[in-house]
Amino acid sequence: MSTVYTRPLARLIEHLQRLPGIGPKTAQRLALHLLKRPEAEIQALAQALVDAKQQVGVCSVCFHLSADPTCDICRAPQRDDSTLCVVADSRDVIAIEKTREYRGKYHVLGGLISPMEGITPDHLHLHPLIQRASQPQITEIILAINPSIEGETTTLYVGQLLKPFAKVTRIAFGLPVGGDLEYADEITLARALEGRRELDWR
Amino acid sequence: MSTVYTRPLARLIEHLQRLPGIGPKTAQRLALHLLKRPEAEIQALAQALVDAKQQVGVCSVCFHLSADPTCDICRAPQRDDSTLCVVADSRDVIAIEKTREYRGKYHVLGGLISPMEGITPDHLHLHPLIQRASQPQITEIILAINPSIEGETTTLYVGQLLKPFAKVTRIAFGLPVGGDLEYADEITLARALEGRRELDWR
Repeated sequence: MSTVYTRPLARLIEHLQRLPGIGPKTAQRLALHLLKRPEAEIQALAQALVDAKQQVGVCSVCFHLSADPTCDICRAPQRDDSTLCVVADSRDVIAIEKTREYRGKYHVLGGLISPMEGITPDHLHLHPLIQRASQPQITEIILAINPSIEGETTTLYVGQLLKPFAKVTRIAFGLPVGGDLEYADEITLARALEGRRELDWR
Repeated sequence: MSTVYTRPLARLIEHLQRLPGIGPKTAQRLALHLLKRPEAEIQALAQALVDAKQQVGVCSVCFHLSADPTCDICRAPQRDDSTLCVVADSRDVIAIEKTREYRGKYHVLGGLISPMEGITPDHLHLHPLIQRASQPQITEIILAINPSIEGETTTLYVGQLLKPFAKVTRIAFGLPVGGDLEYADEITLARALEGRRELDWR
């Protein structure tokens, strides 16, 4: 390899290859593209990387990614204080925010219970969640956690924990919109049947 | 967008999205992955970006990417001085080097003649190529240029230019190894027929 790429280029390709979903071919293509860009643009990208790493921490209230001590969502006065949506990861907050359907607040657990990987309830942000759930204004806690084995375990565990404080609900699982009964897997279809609701005749 | 991503994260995603083949979803995934890596790793990536941009220039002899005034290939004493392989871009040098089949030297044109895009022969590294081609040790010049319209124009132009100095050849075009006659496009098949060679009975 050392004769194919000049040293600093080889080092850059090596770094890019460590990114998820970036193989050797893509890393080479990205690196050669970057070499052709103006130096100011490269400096700005490098600075953006370092800034993001140094400035982005987690919100002290909900544990969502934030550059401030408290995140934009927790500070927003127009958001509904009575509903908490519990998710595993910040990327779930981002996904739900993009729907523009939810106006309550969030709580990021920071993972899922997984005895196989040694992740016990102590590793999740559960104590602050209980404190928040016990506040009188909270009326509903929505669990929006993936329907995986770890997700189910976590949903049941957190559900039990929060039951004394508020109504605990979970998001629906079923056929995706645009999906096809014929091609749905059995588990999804079973969940869709299980979650059936009476037709709304209004 | 501003409420979905905290500011420094939004800026990083914006920068990543400018890379070729990286859409908004991939940019978000990469940025969230990077936030979870140790700061030392992010600093190293940022440094690798800046170093590559600042240190990698082109070889003064062959115009291949190089961190030194002369590239590794031009300096390698064991490489064949009598053959020059002319390519459009440094990435073509890398592709040919990876075959480990070629032991001669290269010359990177830095583009292809394209009247449509205003790229005339003056924009390519042709004067240094003529100087190299006129050296007595050069016996063969291989043109390894893509079979596109611009590539054909450039091949014919450069071929005419170099004919007085040495034997000028070009790489073969035809059915790719593992390819299927039935699925080959007509132009490739025509080129494969045109380039037919007598069977070697040895």
